[in-house]
Amino acid sequence: MILDSVRVGIVGVSGYGGGELARLLAMHPKAELTYVTSGTYKGKPLSTALPGVAGRINLTCEEFDIDTAVAKCDVVFLAGEAGLAMKLAEPLIGAGKKVIDLSADFRLKSTAHYQQWYKSEHTAPHMIDQAVYGLPELNRETIKKASLIANPGCYPTSAILALAPLLKHIPFIRGGELIDPKTIIIDSHSGVSGAGRSKFGLDYHFSEVNESIKPYGVGGVHRHVPEIEQALGQVAGHDITVTFTPHLSPVTRGILTTAYANMNLDAEDYGVDRVHAIFQAVYQNEPFVVVMDPGQFPATKYAEGTNYCYIGVAVDERTNRVIVISAEDNLVKGMAGQAIQNMNLMCGFDETDGLQMVGMWP
Amino acid sequence: MILDSVRVGIVGVSGYGGGELARLLAMHPKAELTYVTSGTYKGKPLSTALPGVAGRINLTCEEFDIDTAVAKCDVVFLAGEAGLAMKLAEPLIGAGKKVIDLSADFRLKSTAHYQQWYKSEHTAPHMIDQAVYGLPELNRETIKKASLIANPGCYPTSAILALAPLLKHIPFIRGGELIDPKTIIIDSHSGVSGAGRSKFGLDYHFSEVNESIKPYGVGGVHRHVPEIEQALGQVAGHDITVTFTPHLSPVTRGILTTAYANMNLDAEDYGVDRVHAIFQAVYQNEPFVVVMDPGQFPATKYAEGTNYCYIGVAVDERTNRVIVISAEDNLVKGMAGQAIQNMNLMCGFDETDGLQMVGMWP
Amino acid sequence: MILDSVRVGIVGVSGYGGGELARLLAMHPKAELTYVTSGTYKGKPLSTALPGVAGRINLTCEEFDIDTAVAKCDVVFLAGEAGLAMKLAEPLIGAGKKVIDLSADFRLKSTAHYQQWYKSEHTAPHMIDQAVYGLPELNRETIKKASLIANPGCYPTSAILALAPLLKHIPFIRGGELIDPKTIIIDSHSGVSGAGRSKFGLDYHFSEVNESIKPYGVGGVHRHVPEIEQALGQVAGHDITVTFTPHLSPVTRGILTTAYANMNLDAEDYGVDRVHAIFQAVYQNEPFVVVMDPGQFPATKYAEGTNYCYIGVAVDERTNRVIVISAEDNLVKGMAGQAIQNMNLMCGFDETDGLQMVGMWP
Amino acid sequence: MILDSVRVGIVGVSGYGGGELARLLAMHPKAELTYVTSGTYKGKPLSTALPGVAGRINLTCEEFDIDTAVAKCDVVFLAGEAGLAMKLAEPLIGAGKKVIDLSADFRLKSTAHYQQWYKSEHTAPHMIDQAVYGLPELNRETIKKASLIANPGCYPTSAILALAPLLKHIPFIRGGELIDPKTIIIDSHSGVSGAGRSKFGLDYHFSEVNESIKPYGVGGVHRHVPEIEQALGQVAGHDITVTFTPHLSPVTRGILTTAYANMNLDAEDYGVDRVHAIFQAVYQNEPFVVVMDPGQFPATKYAEGTNYCYIGVAVDERTNRVIVISAEDNLVKGMAGQAIQNMNLMCGFDETDGLQMVGMWP
Repeated sequence: MILDSVRVGIVGVSGYGGGELARLLAMHPKAELTYVTSGTYKGKPLSTALPGVAGRINLTCEEFDIDTAVAKCDVVFLAGEAGLAMKLAEPLIGAGKKVIDLSADFRLKSTAHYQQWYKSEHTAPHMIDQAVYGLPELNRETIKKASLIANPGCYPTSAILALAPLLKHIPFIRGGELIDPKTIIIDSHSGVSGAGRSKFGLDYHFSEVNESIKPYGVGGVHRHVPEIEQALGQVAGHDITVTFTPHLSPVTRGILTTAYANMNLDAEDYGVDRVHAIFQAVYQNEPFVVVMDPGQFPATKYAEGTNYCYIGVAVDERTNRVIVISAEDNLVKGMAGQAIQNMNLMCGFDETDGLQMVGMWP
Repeated sequence: MILDSVRVGIVGVSGYGGGELARLLAMHPKAELTYVTSGTYKGKPLSTALPGVAGRINLTCEEFDIDTAVAKCDVVFLAGEAGLAMKLAEPLIGAGKKVIDLSADFRLKSTAHYQQWYKSEHTAPHMIDQAVYGLPELNRETIKKASLIANPGCYPTSAILALAPLLKHIPFIRGGELIDPKTIIIDSHSGVSGAGRSKFGLDYHFSEVNESIKPYGVGGVHRHVPEIEQALGQVAGHDITVTFTPHLSPVTRGILTTAYANMNLDAEDYGVDRVHAIFQAVYQNEPFVVVMDPGQFPATKYAEGTNYCYIGVAVDERTNRVIVISAEDNLVKGMAGQAIQNMNLMCGFDETDGLQMVGMWP
Repeated sequence: MILDSVRVGIVGVSGYGGGELARLLAMHPKAELTYVTSGTYKGKPLSTALPGVAGRINLTCEEFDIDTAVAKCDVVFLAGEAGLAMKLAEPLIGAGKKVIDLSADFRLKSTAHYQQWYKSEHTAPHMIDQAVYGLPELNRETIKKASLIANPGCYPTSAILALAPLLKHIPFIRGGELIDPKTIIIDSHSGVSGAGRSKFGLDYHFSEVNESIKPYGVGGVHRHVPEIEQALGQVAGHDITVTFTPHLSPVTRGILTTAYANMNLDAEDYGVDRVHAIFQAVYQNEPFVVVMDPGQFPATKYAEGTNYCYIGVAVDERTNRVIVISAEDNLVKGMAGQAIQNMNLMCGFDETDGLQMVGMWP
Repeated sequence: MILDSVRVGIVGVSGYGGGELARLLAMHPKAELTYVTSGTYKGKPLSTALPGVAGRINLTCEEFDIDTAVAKCDVVFLAGEAGLAMKLAEPLIGAGKKVIDLSADFRLKSTAHYQQWYKSEHTAPHMIDQAVYGLPELNRETIKKASLIANPGCYPTSAILALAPLLKHIPFIRGGELIDPKTIIIDSHSGVSGAGRSKFGLDYHFSEVNESIKPYGVGGVHRHVPEIEQALGQVAGHDITVTFTPHLSPVTRGILTTAYANMNLDAEDYGVDRVHAIFQAVYQNEPFVVVMDPGQFPATKYAEGTNYCYIGVAVDERTNRVIVISAEDNLVKGMAGQAIQNMNLMCGFDETDGLQMVGMWP
């Protein structure tokens, strides 16, 4: 189905994911933002919640109502609290809408995993099968046909894009895998916007976050672990277990992921140029993945405000390890931009529509 | 003259002004970027100088050559070092090109002032008359007919937009002026990108700028003083002398200006609502000036990455002073965005073409 | 009275003022920190509230109890919520304790002013007379004899130190005053720690404060106005009315104040060297005020973590205005350091005891 | 030898290492700073180079002269350019001075390694044997007797303190080692001051570093690799090879190191409490290492301005990996503070003299 244009709604517009959707959709040539909801700001102009839209978007925040959503929208982005999609996906899809969910409700295929990591029962297990994990670089064709998208988490996007090429079957390597999948370590540093807008308290208070770098979720306990493992397992064709450590860095936007794995081949035989060639081959037609030249590595600022993920690769010849660096804007490729990329695919638009921003420098 | 599209060149593309022009022009519907020059990066891809354009603009930086500029461009932005426009404006205009100069070469109408403040002789005084000071809010109609634009400085843009409405003749006020022009004080804080990209040294070294606020040019000695005074004098119809203090704040982009002046009327009679009404009247049709409601004041972040200037007004009733706050992105409305706004006017495009970005939040 | 050492308590140790007191007192040669209270952290080690003291101070936060305070302390710092001193000053002083209050409870001498600016009634008006405004540069001798100190606000400290020398009687100037006191404008930018530790919400959320400069309290409505006016009036010998505008800048610590006033003399006759000489004369014996050479101005970073206030002066010869810049650490000279300076004076210690830190650079 | 006090000189006082030494020595009870040299600032007051010392240290920067150094100092800190110690250590030691070198000149015991990693020949190989690697937690007793200290690098300090306890022989573990040393990965993020003060250019320009996280030296090519391996090899009793990736984060000070290694034991048998107990046992008497409780991890801000290194440990039970986080101030424990700790040991002072600062919060 190829549409000329769509009417779009954002449920939960006043959070950072919802707000970024509003910013990007306002610049989208084929999407008309028709409906924005917010519990906190209901009845108030959107610019009250999002100063940057003053003079550009004149919508008023409404309280969510499913009938209004159905009447006003062709595509509904769910950017509110966890659990929303488990309630709303079914009725919205039943009314013929396309639903893109920014929460983790439908990211995990296993309800057991969901329960284990999210500490609550999944209340819409019958919908899991039709949810497509919305990482276009992995699932482009199924996304095109989907009605329900589980939009990936910000860390998983950066980790999966960094590691997937290393896990694809390579026939001329014995065993077929360039790396030993048991050795994957993912070390990520995120900007503070990744914590969302509704978390207050000292952990996100400027005076305590500024001029400081801090780990959290150390020891493989972050909820993005099973999501990363599920997607990498899909690529590899077998189960993958990883160590993942997130950190908070004093920037507003950006995730830098440094991923490590031992190579099955000797680095002297299989150096950085050949690893780089694998990445280039895998991503050559991807509109939003930029593979940097060998010896070049991205900073998060490269991607700020854009939907690009920049990737640089290295080989540590002394330890036979491959090291992959990825940089993205956690709110764009890590969230709202990717959601719009999914919408474009679902609606038959050009995949890059509304996402052709050039990054600011500086 | 209304053009369908124009071929555009940027001389000095690797500085922050030139780089921001490239970013914005890449998103402009009617401008084709055909020629970029840089002494430092000649022969290299533009993305070497500007990481944010990787994957979006594939031009190579050239060494400047006037014949090539004439052959490849309809509009030439001069974003290189001071003095360039004094050399290049005449031949480019002679070849039928439109020239928009980001330097101070043609901002001052008096060569004596130029010499006094810039400590060197003006080498193209015969061109000064045809140069139009490119602040659309003051000079829109003359900009439309101009071939040579002196694009305003970043501080002057923020100061002039904050103060001009107060200096317009108001018939029902005795003497015609709301404020005593001798009492104008302009206190501005700028992000570090305002210093440009080629100034190295400890003054702009991250470790010494970060976590610090610092004044400079204290005592009315900054070169933007005569530019502010000339424009405000044009509005008032008589000479204006101001005190202006710039400061460096640890942000990359943004200027916040806090301007003060004594009112000729009693604040009890002429309170904030009436002052606000003046600003609304003056700016009601301006596409890039947002006058905030009384009691509301902007942060620089509101304007980050966009061409908007946000203005808030207050009256200190105890001292009979009006206080005006303006916030802009020094590289957009304070530089490259305004230059494109001028190009749009000169070319008969919609004034907002290519400048309809929604600000990021956060 | 000269004491060998004192036992010190901090009521409200987990706020930024209380925490900074703890940090500084731990390095004080004559003070023993014996009692710290916190509602939020009661029963927990102090390092839970203040990570920087781990390994250095082993106290446990207690719930405040006046009998314990009396038993354990010679000097009590009140760093908790507003109103605490109105309740506790009398019984503590009655028990022979010295009290230093960091709140505004006893800063204003006029209960009418207190009510007007703080919107609530003063509940201990009979104590106001014995409270001494703890700015040693103004009131050193009375501080020495005081039992109750109203420790100055952070903005007032920076503003009063910047302006007081200009308001002292100068016999050889006609009228005795160098500046026209009606023309005083104070423009200040503060780090975010000035808002305290208990204010959460978007106004202090890292993602919204970072990379942004924002005014607040515009129009002469900030509660520090009457405090500044009272102290400057004390110096001048007559009422003073000022315009004061505070701003929030994205640094953790530091206040930069830029103060303006018209000179009664002609700047050509009375230039920066003579103004500078006044400041030098006034502050030559002050241990914590550094008057910079003419042409030199401080950055807030100069003072970070120290009790110094740096001052630079300029004269705008074109407008006959004097401009004074002051830089301080809002939590040290603007709060806890000054409180300890007051304690030193009250106890007969060397005024600089425990305050001789050298500022970090960078 | 136990001294009452020492006269101290700093060669290269205007860099960040030299400046931090000056700051700390000014607060040292037994050190008198008598001699500071700087090529850039010779003949100028030290406060010209280091604004934070204004009002506290009144020395003038001199041009280095060995006779003056010998006459004026008992201890000489070499904080200037690389290669200085290879020239000056011998004559200074010959004159009976104690020398503490902040450069890498004498850190590596193998001249072959020196040549390989520093790309130049070692010009004083005969001095290497008497140089002691100045990490007190490893070499306290030899430091006490040394005349020449090779002060550790900032990254190595953070990495070695994080990993050394895991490499000590543990008799009851089969093979004696808790971890497989071939699996060590060290991922570090440093503040920008780590690059020193004399490196200008875009890499350290505020506008390009701010709001960005960037890796460098990816692939095991950073010069701190052999230093880390040498020290860990000393602990383990055999060669160690590691993967180390440094990153630049937008803070002025601080290094956060996240170190990973596979455990030889099953995590179910040997969980975080037992790993934590090893760290506590190793560091229980260390004055500057704070081992945090299980589940607690430090932020770099905890250590800002202090000589502490904070360490937190975790076990990823799903992957059988131990993860150690260390946080330090790169200019204090990572440089000047550790140098003074070494001086204290060499001179028989209390190891913590002059280093008892409490960290600022916030």
